[in-house]
Amino acid sequence: MNIKKQFTRRTIQTNKRPARPPHQTLPERERRLIAKLKTHKTMQKKKTTDHKNLKIIAVGGFEKIGKNCIGVEYDQDIILIDLGFAFPSRDMLGIDYVLPDISYFVKNKKKIRGIIISHGHLDHTGGIPYLIPQLGSVPIFTARLTSEMIKKRLEEFPNITANIKTIDPLKDKLRLGNFNIEFFRVNHSIPDAISIVVHSPEGTIVYTGDFKFDFTPATDKRANFQKIAEIGKKEVLLMLSESTNAHKQGFTISEKEIGESLDIAFTKCPGRIIIGTFSSLLSRIQQIINSAKKHGRKVSFAGYSMLQNFEIASRLKYYDLPRNILIAPHEIKNFPDDKIVVIAAGSQGQENSAIGRMSTGNHRFIKLKKGDTVILSSRPIPGNEKSVFNLIDNLIRQGANIIHDENMDVHTSGHGSAGDLKLMMTLINPKYLIPNHGSLYARYSHAKLGQDIGIPEQNTILLDNGQIAEFSNNQLISTKKKIPSGQVFVDGLGIGDIGNVVIRDRQHLAGDGIIVIIAQIKTDNTPAEDKDIDIISRGFVYMKEADPLINKIRQNIVEIINLKAENTQVDLNQIRNDLRDKIGEFVFQQTERRPMIIPVTIEV
Amino acid sequence: MNIKKQFTRRTIQTNKRPARPPHQTLPERERRLIAKLKTHKTMQKKKTTDHKNLKIIAVGGFEKIGKNCIGVEYDQDIILIDLGFAFPSRDMLGIDYVLPDISYFVKNKKKIRGIIISHGHLDHTGGIPYLIPQLGSVPIFTARLTSEMIKKRLEEFPNITANIKTIDPLKDKLRLGNFNIEFFRVNHSIPDAISIVVHSPEGTIVYTGDFKFDFTPATDKRANFQKIAEIGKKEVLLMLSESTNAHKQGFTISEKEIGESLDIAFTKCPGRIIIGTFSSLLSRIQQIINSAKKHGRKVSFAGYSMLQNFEIASRLKYYDLPRNILIAPHEIKNFPDDKIVVIAAGSQGQENSAIGRMSTGNHRFIKLKKGDTVILSSRPIPGNEKSVFNLIDNLIRQGANIIHDENMDVHTSGHGSAGDLKLMMTLINPKYLIPNHGSLYARYSHAKLGQDIGIPEQNTILLDNGQIAEFSNNQLISTKKKIPSGQVFVDGLGIGDIGNVVIRDRQHLAGDGIIVIIAQIKTDNTPAEDKDIDIISRGFVYMKEADPLINKIRQNIVEIINLKAENTQVDLNQIRNDLRDKIGEFVFQQTERRPMIIPVTIEV
Repeated sequence: MNIKKQFTRRTIQTNKRPARPPHQTLPERERRLIAKLKTHKTMQKKKTTDHKNLKIIAVGGFEKIGKNCIGVEYDQDIILIDLGFAFPSRDMLGIDYVLPDISYFVKNKKKIRGIIISHGHLDHTGGIPYLIPQLGSVPIFTARLTSEMIKKRLEEFPNITANIKTIDPLKDKLRLGNFNIEFFRVNHSIPDAISIVVHSPEGTIVYTGDFKFDFTPATDKRANFQKIAEIGKKEVLLMLSESTNAHKQGFTISEKEIGESLDIAFTKCPGRIIIGTFSSLLSRIQQIINSAKKHGRKVSFAGYSMLQNFEIASRLKYYDLPRNILIAPHEIKNFPDDKIVVIAAGSQGQENSAIGRMSTGNHRFIKLKKGDTVILSSRPIPGNEKSVFNLIDNLIRQGANIIHDENMDVHTSGHGSAGDLKLMMTLINPKYLIPNHGSLYARYSHAKLGQDIGIPEQNTILLDNGQIAEFSNNQLISTKKKIPSGQVFVDGLGIGDIGNVVIRDRQHLAGDGIIVIIAQIKTDNTPAEDKDIDIISRGFVYMKEADPLINKIRQNIVEIINLKAENTQVDLNQIRNDLRDKIGEFVFQQTERRPMIIPVTIEV
Repeated sequence: MNIKKQFTRRTIQTNKRPARPPHQTLPERERRLIAKLKTHKTMQKKKTTDHKNLKIIAVGGFEKIGKNCIGVEYDQDIILIDLGFAFPSRDMLGIDYVLPDISYFVKNKKKIRGIIISHGHLDHTGGIPYLIPQLGSVPIFTARLTSEMIKKRLEEFPNITANIKTIDPLKDKLRLGNFNIEFFRVNHSIPDAISIVVHSPEGTIVYTGDFKFDFTPATDKRANFQKIAEIGKKEVLLMLSESTNAHKQGFTISEKEIGESLDIAFTKCPGRIIIGTFSSLLSRIQQIINSAKKHGRKVSFAGYSMLQNFEIASRLKYYDLPRNILIAPHEIKNFPDDKIVVIAAGSQGQENSAIGRMSTGNHRFIKLKKGDTVILSSRPIPGNEKSVFNLIDNLIRQGANIIHDENMDVHTSGHGSAGDLKLMMTLINPKYLIPNHGSLYARYSHAKLGQDIGIPEQNTILLDNGQIAEFSNNQLISTKKKIPSGQVFVDGLGIGDIGNVVIRDRQHLAGDGIIVIIAQIKTDNTPAEDKDIDIISRGFVYMKEADPLINKIRQNIVEIINLKAENTQVDLNQIRNDLRDKIGEFVFQQTERRPMIIPVTIEV
């Protein structure tokens, strides 16, 4: 047969597969060949047409916020931009973090020329310790603070080494394979946030990273407006731009205004001031330090992440620290209340954080009392609303006065609103827009903004995680291809060893608990009795008060076993299936609950 | 002994307890007597001093929103106001609803003269089917719509009868024991919301229920301003006033303004309009019907709760329905897209609701498509934010355009803001304020508002669930007494049979799963082997890929058993404890997970 011969020959040439095992029957061989042929045709097409396309691969951050990662591929070169993790959603029981699926890049790791990280938040860096070992010794490029924060975090993973290269976004340019890369600075809620400009043979790509335009960024530097405009003057094929606040109108409030609000708050607080904020929000913290100096208060830091980031930032001289302003938490008691500011971690309501412990009276050095004011200079991350309101209730219970985002302007977002996004699009003037970093709703709103300022609807591209946008000759040619895009769970030391089966089991256990039935089955065919049956339950009912129900279950079990045992041959498998189904049904009738039923049979 | 004699005699007189069993030993008898004596002393004090105090008992709704219930007690009379349930918080795994603890009232059920329900929302009525059987045939008084909604819900509980009496809040007055009761109408997000005025021998109590002041309440009637002012003119001892939006400034937006926004939205939607809202928000629904008529659109209802409440409201003539405007869902396809409005349940993101099913393409009659507009005329209830944003993403994925609270004024709260609350306090002019219905933060904010308008700080009272405020001679005399105030969980058919132990087990199972070890222990002291050990796990690891780990666990188990079995006497209890501790520790070392370990030993 012609097709077969043709195919076999080519396969051997290109794939170097071992010869067909001789014992295969013809129809089976035929079936396999056709399957192979299908693969082959695609591969052939790829070889000749698409390897010179520019591919933008949406790895993570395109459905929910978190685990940001983007691949840029051209010919034999790939670069990755950002490698974050996500916090688990409510239904991912027991999971610590969620990683992006990078199996495509592990398979193609020889092509990877580098990873570029836009800024130091965990949704952009958190995947590094878990995923770098799978990618080999690929260099990681990023700006100074980000670089130090990644290194600090890697100290917690002593077996993992990473090749981190610090770049200066104003001066440095990189050549990674076919890509020429430069950077510009933007504002965000952490210093050293950079946007990444990738010049590829198929056109220029701009990845904004998380940003806002802040004309008065307090202690941080402004974005490089001139450089951004210069990039926009040349032709930009495509911009990947963050979408977090795309559905919010106007411009995001400047950091400096928040500093001014906080300073007003200082004048209103007669006693101690405790401020909860994000430990990486250095310009906020500097503004608090400035107000403390102005009002003659000492500053103390509380909380692990706060101390860790303070150590990095002060070592790198990101802080301007007045002499003698810092005191240790145990020294607070030596100063009058109106001479104290505490800057603390935990404004998201985490129970074990510094503020969390203060709210329950469990902080070692800071016991809240009437006259204290707690300022939450932050906003609940979506999903944390209830924890934050719980925190506020507990703080009030300790006697503290509360100032937060709802009753005073003590926080602003690091993410640009509609105005910031439109300004960036106007300056960069891209042909195509791929909104990233946001829910579908945020990205959809961002696409509408792009259409508003003149980008044709078909040039605003909404991708799902795993989807690939391919460009050739300055045109989008397809968004049909996909890479694997599942969620990779981190639970304790395990990475990816927990899949949906385990999660579903945890959900089942969480909802109705478990009943384990241990039944001793007699091989001599004498009838089962109550004493042959052990029933253990957890998370189902309070066993001590459920004796009548448990006894009924036991009687049912005995009946099921004896019914089966009447047959000549005892089929343990069948008995277990029967126990699972019938006891499950009986329990549901009695309680309208569906605990997991695990039957164990032991032949005696 | 004197004390004993005295006590015994009095106990028999007052409590009619059976005589002491003769077999009790003296020390045991003594111990019990002292315990009884303690109870008795309190009772004696009560009898002589406090039974003529007015007691306001905070049963539920004083810590979190939900399970609203208040007791008012004087001498031999108790009335209850509202009897709601709460939806479980995230950590109450598998729980359907949470009920207030009414054990105090069950114990005193002979004193209960009636239950008054302020309005038809489940956080005020949901406890009735579960708790009424414990309270006997006590009458339930409420306004018309509430009464019908309670009856409708009771149809789902065929074994439960309730004695429901419909009152007219404008005309009817009640005498329940020592209490004279009258009512006034307020506005809320459901018609027939009433405030309750209780005249007791110790003074007048006003319970606002959930309310706002709406000067243009669309189709609903305005609050009885004149009657409220008249009540305030006489002396009001104390007001219990709801606090949901106490921390929001100004007045809550009028329902009519929302109707106007919705009407503007109608002019902007070229295709079908699907509006998600609360099924009991009748004035919103009437306004949608009015706009539909104006724009020549037919109206169809979707969703069980929507149809159920529509049936009640149209039967009671709360709706003004234009002729021929209603169509059934299966008729939608017979009309052009711009002639259709669907009013649907499920705006909180519930997966199985009408809108939930539309968002995933699973609704039988309504398949969303490009050109459709979904208006979410609602706001996420705190805790539902993520589900609602997930719903919005799914609706966009189906091609629909989205209008919601964030991009247009298509919803307003039924709860008064700071302005409404201050107006009510000004009109009622109470001596004492007890903010209820809200988190501590909301109630604390409400107390501050009260202080702002001149109520002394010590007269604004923040109670916890279970706490009692006692008044005598027009004065607060104590808030020290408490009744039991635990949470009573409903799970399936069980009410209160699940306590904290079961919930903690479910949390443990949810986090790390379970490992069941079934070990056959040989009574003849021959060493255990691998084949004597069965290991079953769920929710821990994907077993098929965890063979090496499971084998290591098995070897550990065998070692532990053989170490123990070397002793002359096999102590199964000791073996089980060892397995639990040591295998737990080993698993944690290997995985940093802490699954529940259940060791089962079987002697063979």
